[in-house]
Amino acid sequence: MKTSAPERERVVGSKVTRVDAVEKVTGLAKYAPDIYFDRMVHCALVIARKPHGILHKIDASRAQKLPGVFGIFTYKDVPGKNRLGEVVDDMPCLVAEGETVKHYGDVVAVVAASTQKTAEEAARKVRLTIEELPAVLDIEEARRDEIRIHGSSNVSVHKKIRKGDVSKGFSRADLIIEDNFMASYQEHAYIEPQGVVVLPDTDYGMTVYGSIQCPYYVQSSLSKVLGFPMSKVRIIQAETGGAFGGKEDVPSFVASYAAVAAYNLKRPARLIYPREIDIHTTSKRHPVKSRYKMGFSKDGEILAIEVDAYMDMGAYATLSPVVMFRTLVHAAGAYSVDNVSVDTYGVYTNKVPPGAFRGFGSPQVLFAVESMVDEASRRLGIDPVDMRMKNALREGSRTSTDQLLTESVGAVETLDKVNELSNWKELNERVEAFNRGSLFQKRGVGLSHIIYGVSLGAQGQHIDKSGAHVQINRDGSVDVRIGGTEMGQGAKTVMAIIAAEELGQKLSQIVVHQTDTAFVPDSGPTVASRTTMFSGNAVRIACKSLRERLVKLYAELNSCSEDEVELHDGMISCGQDKGMPFDELIEEAFKKNVKMFEAGWYQSPVLEWDPESGIGQAYITYSFASQVVVVEVDMITGNTKVLEAYTVHDVGKAINPEGVIGQIQGGFVQGMGYALSEDLKMLNGRILTDNFNTYIIPTIRDIPRVFKYGIVEDEFSEGPYGAKGIGEPSLMATPPAIANAISRAIGRRIRHIPATPEYVLNVIKEDAE
Amino acid sequence: MKTSAPERERVVGSKVTRVDAVEKVTGLAKYAPDIYFDRMVHCALVIARKPHGILHKIDASRAQKLPGVFGIFTYKDVPGKNRLGEVVDDMPCLVAEGETVKHYGDVVAVVAASTQKTAEEAARKVRLTIEELPAVLDIEEARRDEIRIHGSSNVSVHKKIRKGDVSKGFSRADLIIEDNFMASYQEHAYIEPQGVVVLPDTDYGMTVYGSIQCPYYVQSSLSKVLGFPMSKVRIIQAETGGAFGGKEDVPSFVASYAAVAAYNLKRPARLIYPREIDIHTTSKRHPVKSRYKMGFSKDGEILAIEVDAYMDMGAYATLSPVVMFRTLVHAAGAYSVDNVSVDTYGVYTNKVPPGAFRGFGSPQVLFAVESMVDEASRRLGIDPVDMRMKNALREGSRTSTDQLLTESVGAVETLDKVNELSNWKELNERVEAFNRGSLFQKRGVGLSHIIYGVSLGAQGQHIDKSGAHVQINRDGSVDVRIGGTEMGQGAKTVMAIIAAEELGQKLSQIVVHQTDTAFVPDSGPTVASRTTMFSGNAVRIACKSLRERLVKLYAELNSCSEDEVELHDGMISCGQDKGMPFDELIEEAFKKNVKMFEAGWYQSPVLEWDPESGIGQAYITYSFASQVVVVEVDMITGNTKVLEAYTVHDVGKAINPEGVIGQIQGGFVQGMGYALSEDLKMLNGRILTDNFNTYIIPTIRDIPRVFKYGIVEDEFSEGPYGAKGIGEPSLMATPPAIANAISRAIGRRIRHIPATPEYVLNVIKEDAE
Repeated sequence: MKTSAPERERVVGSKVTRVDAVEKVTGLAKYAPDIYFDRMVHCALVIARKPHGILHKIDASRAQKLPGVFGIFTYKDVPGKNRLGEVVDDMPCLVAEGETVKHYGDVVAVVAASTQKTAEEAARKVRLTIEELPAVLDIEEARRDEIRIHGSSNVSVHKKIRKGDVSKGFSRADLIIEDNFMASYQEHAYIEPQGVVVLPDTDYGMTVYGSIQCPYYVQSSLSKVLGFPMSKVRIIQAETGGAFGGKEDVPSFVASYAAVAAYNLKRPARLIYPREIDIHTTSKRHPVKSRYKMGFSKDGEILAIEVDAYMDMGAYATLSPVVMFRTLVHAAGAYSVDNVSVDTYGVYTNKVPPGAFRGFGSPQVLFAVESMVDEASRRLGIDPVDMRMKNALREGSRTSTDQLLTESVGAVETLDKVNELSNWKELNERVEAFNRGSLFQKRGVGLSHIIYGVSLGAQGQHIDKSGAHVQINRDGSVDVRIGGTEMGQGAKTVMAIIAAEELGQKLSQIVVHQTDTAFVPDSGPTVASRTTMFSGNAVRIACKSLRERLVKLYAELNSCSEDEVELHDGMISCGQDKGMPFDELIEEAFKKNVKMFEAGWYQSPVLEWDPESGIGQAYITYSFASQVVVVEVDMITGNTKVLEAYTVHDVGKAINPEGVIGQIQGGFVQGMGYALSEDLKMLNGRILTDNFNTYIIPTIRDIPRVFKYGIVEDEFSEGPYGAKGIGEPSLMATPPAIANAISRAIGRRIRHIPATPEYVLNVIKEDAE
Repeated sequence: MKTSAPERERVVGSKVTRVDAVEKVTGLAKYAPDIYFDRMVHCALVIARKPHGILHKIDASRAQKLPGVFGIFTYKDVPGKNRLGEVVDDMPCLVAEGETVKHYGDVVAVVAASTQKTAEEAARKVRLTIEELPAVLDIEEARRDEIRIHGSSNVSVHKKIRKGDVSKGFSRADLIIEDNFMASYQEHAYIEPQGVVVLPDTDYGMTVYGSIQCPYYVQSSLSKVLGFPMSKVRIIQAETGGAFGGKEDVPSFVASYAAVAAYNLKRPARLIYPREIDIHTTSKRHPVKSRYKMGFSKDGEILAIEVDAYMDMGAYATLSPVVMFRTLVHAAGAYSVDNVSVDTYGVYTNKVPPGAFRGFGSPQVLFAVESMVDEASRRLGIDPVDMRMKNALREGSRTSTDQLLTESVGAVETLDKVNELSNWKELNERVEAFNRGSLFQKRGVGLSHIIYGVSLGAQGQHIDKSGAHVQINRDGSVDVRIGGTEMGQGAKTVMAIIAAEELGQKLSQIVVHQTDTAFVPDSGPTVASRTTMFSGNAVRIACKSLRERLVKLYAELNSCSEDEVELHDGMISCGQDKGMPFDELIEEAFKKNVKMFEAGWYQSPVLEWDPESGIGQAYITYSFASQVVVVEVDMITGNTKVLEAYTVHDVGKAINPEGVIGQIQGGFVQGMGYALSEDLKMLNGRILTDNFNTYIIPTIRDIPRVFKYGIVEDEFSEGPYGAKGIGEPSLMATPPAIANAISRAIGRRIRHIPATPEYVLNVIKEDAE
């Protein structure tokens, strides 16, 4: 779709106030816990609290006696199929007697009571008789397959890329580096924990209001668990206080538990997770253990790359098989390399199942590959920027899956711009000067350069579409409903801008409502930085049809040519006439019975992909980013502080520049936590850091005092106004930049994130020994 | 739109179970009083209880002290415009101090309390200081204009038809009859009184759930009263227990009162009318006083017709100006007459404002004109069927507004069929034989022949359109949402049949949801027997687009010609292949990202109309009906019993024949109540018969033991599958048939309905004197 907006000042690209700002800051916005229904019950979960074992008996007798308890529901009370899982249904909704519990957070029963406190007290009184089995607690142990969690091998998923001939590449190399990397868990740490309110009713069967990222996943899961047709399961997203992938498939589970209670009691049911339950039972970023081997020419060209990466899938597959596709495609980094071999594996363990998280399996390997490139540049004595520039993707390049890039390749531009923004040469000199004068504090400059495949890609193209429902009311106010969701990232504002731009109505008259599965059919998930492009295109398509009708009507009313009609900022005019307010034109349209609503639909271009070789069009397009950070490491404590950050993103087009900046800021901070402090600790499969007193996320005091950003707009012809995605790349550039900066500061390679003070100190000390 | 469904057995026209039957008979269906929200308040109204006077003071001090009272809201608390009225906003939402109250049921304040009982008690404690003014209590008094209710003349609306030259017509006549008729009030007597629950919320501003016939009217009124944009006012129809026009504009008032409370308290508010409040304050069928003069040739041809009709509009215009359009067009009956002069007038009185009621201003004049024709047939000694047949409309005829009828004119066929169905000749002989042997019981056979203009017609064409939103879910279940409403008449079943027919999905997989203004823009009101045609066409249009995509997909998947693909009863097939279940095809469609929702829209053909002469295309098409009844009158008590009924309707096409029969039965019974027993009594502007102990509606014991019906299907090319309307004509044929039957039984002309025993006895006695 080519840009075709009027020549006038556009709403697209202008500075606007976030459309949901007032509701959110005044407390009017309704999150799941703000939703109450008459006769509503409060739920709490009974979880296994053992990593592995046979569940012999669920004894709820003591719990049931507690006053205020309405019911305790187990696998016996599931009306439909007692199975969950978006990709593979290997997970029980509620573990049955006789089945094995497979991780600490496995859910066994749902308690419904008159208050939250009573429900939780009753949940504690439910006695589970579990015969413990030896547990598989790490990737290596899982690979040995001595204890098999799901019957067949624990190594249950394998994906690969075979491009060119790596052995030939290595044979030509002047420098070969091999190394191992480990990226640990990251907790999503959304402000608002998981929560739903489930309402059984007549017209819609079961309606779910909740903190939900992907309503269609919830609809489909609930339809199975309840045994209802999908027309009888309606999902309405409540205001959602952060998600980051953590509310992608998980709310399907949360809603299912609550729905089992609601179904059996015929009463509305509310299930809001306490933070501890949330951390024990819900997804995280996957731990990934990777082995890298890369060959370079002496002038820095990457000749071959070979990667093995093992992902810890935990006890159930959940989204791991699709997460792994992104790991696969991103493992070789943002470079043009002729010879690539990548193998990614997913292994079951008796731990919480990780899943989707901003970056979706790519940050772990981008950290590794950028560490490798940094190490090569150090060893070859090539400037890190030059090193990236030499290998960077350009129009006409081919990616690691041999995909030809024909447009919107802003990679080099991001490198140029970050070089300029950070004053790269001078910055390095400044840091060197500091280090010469400092004994215990050492500073380092780190660079990263990343690629991001926009939207779901070849493995997800069967769900890569989006709908929008746009309705103009008789008073000119416009209702927009999309299949994507607002979860804090700013989707509503982007959609409102697109509608205002296309219709020529004032932005203040556009209302983007909460997402509701009843308005738009399955539009795929709100993930993969695809909402601006997919929901945005759907809104644009719907608005274009409406606009055409308005233009035709105005031209008829004013006997002028349709080509001359302009709609802009709440006014419609033709040539030099005085024009007419948008609202008046709409009144005319209604009087003439003109259709003033539209069902917009956008579907992904078809991608050619061979899953056997991993060769083909992996994604419809790619975003790029380059980032520079300066860190200061305390050589005594191992503590790292990020002092400066410079980050440049190629977003295709910044429809809402303020929103893009917000994403860059937020993604950076979340990436910084991942790189430095967010250290999920486990003991025998149980998470010890189950709240934010022990699991340390960055605060405002950790934000670098110097933080500059640049936006590159290398437009993508399929994107609305040229837009690609920003949600995930904003995080992805950060961990490798920080890791490289620390490595440069301490003169030793960081091979593990988070690079906690303890870890950094160990790296320093290892060398000292 | 021409019929294009497959050759196979159709869903259209087959016998199906009503889609909402189970919910309704099991009590699962949710009516407004079944809807509860947390923190909801209960409301009661303070009404004027004086027919005319100046409201000096509202004293709520005593009421406010009552424990449990949350607030008492007056005109001061209306956030937007304190005005209501769909056509003319001559009515206050809440009468202000200093303003005049204009009828007994004028609403002055809304009380909100913790319980219904407290709210009502508090409402009784609000003291109104009203300086009484002389009241205008009947049409004649109003016409004298000595007391003017709205400043200007009480006779505020006048519409006319001038076709041909009536004086020339009369000069050629062999017989001229002049007479006066009076049709009194009729109360809608819906089972469920008016009621709404109003929910202030963040995403939608104000959501109304209620017993509502025309959600868009409520949306527009509330938007003004609250001062909200329409995107912030959402109307969701609750299951509605009957409406008959009585929930056309009235719920806009009900919702406004509740919304004022909800807005001020920021709490959900519930306002359910007690029956007495409902009868005192809400609309009725208009009393119409008419003067007829008709000229006939000796062989029965109608040569000229002259009509004056005065409607009592009560204290406010409400829908009267549009009701009167239908009175105007139907005043000359169902005949081809060259010379027509009709004048209709609307006058203000200090009484409850009548409004829409099944038939919408036409039953009053159809009773009169059919009485005139019957009288002529008696005087000329022409058989009543022959008399109608002679003057009946045919293809090529012109109506009283000179509209040329080109198709779907089933008038003659209904006469033929009722003749046959009732065994007309023999029936008359049988009744005559009875009368010869009976002194105190006399029987009579009455005939009526009526016309009904389908949909809103020339005066309403600016709102004559309808939308539908059809969505197919991934599991093949289909969601249908329309702008029209189900209020008991069977709209949901008709829509489900159309969707099943067009999509080829099983009827059981189609869900027609409650109407919600958020899904479909202003689709006009659910009135004028227009829902089957307008919402039906919109559903059909949406489904056709979806079907085309499915056919294309199946043809592609099976390499066959699209022309050969058939969709039927949940299977899709091509030529002789074994076919594929609908659900599987939908799964394929989703995998291929095919758009599976549509916004359907149907707009009325444009009608040419001259309001000055009343000449032109009054309606898009006409339905016809002929009815025969046999009554038995007790000459001592005046009591009338309907013994037999034969009724034949030209509906164009019976999409749901069982539903058509249901309408015929229900309409007949309601028409019978209007004709015989429903006698609204007033004293000084106050209704005395304010519940069903004194206002007598027919019961199952009053239904004639012989009740036969026939359906004529003279298809209308614009209607879905040829369908026209049935909702209103079902009632309209009954009062004149009964009146004529009584007239024949007692040998004297009935000129007033209801023809209560008292009235009939007076007619008998008058003659005796």
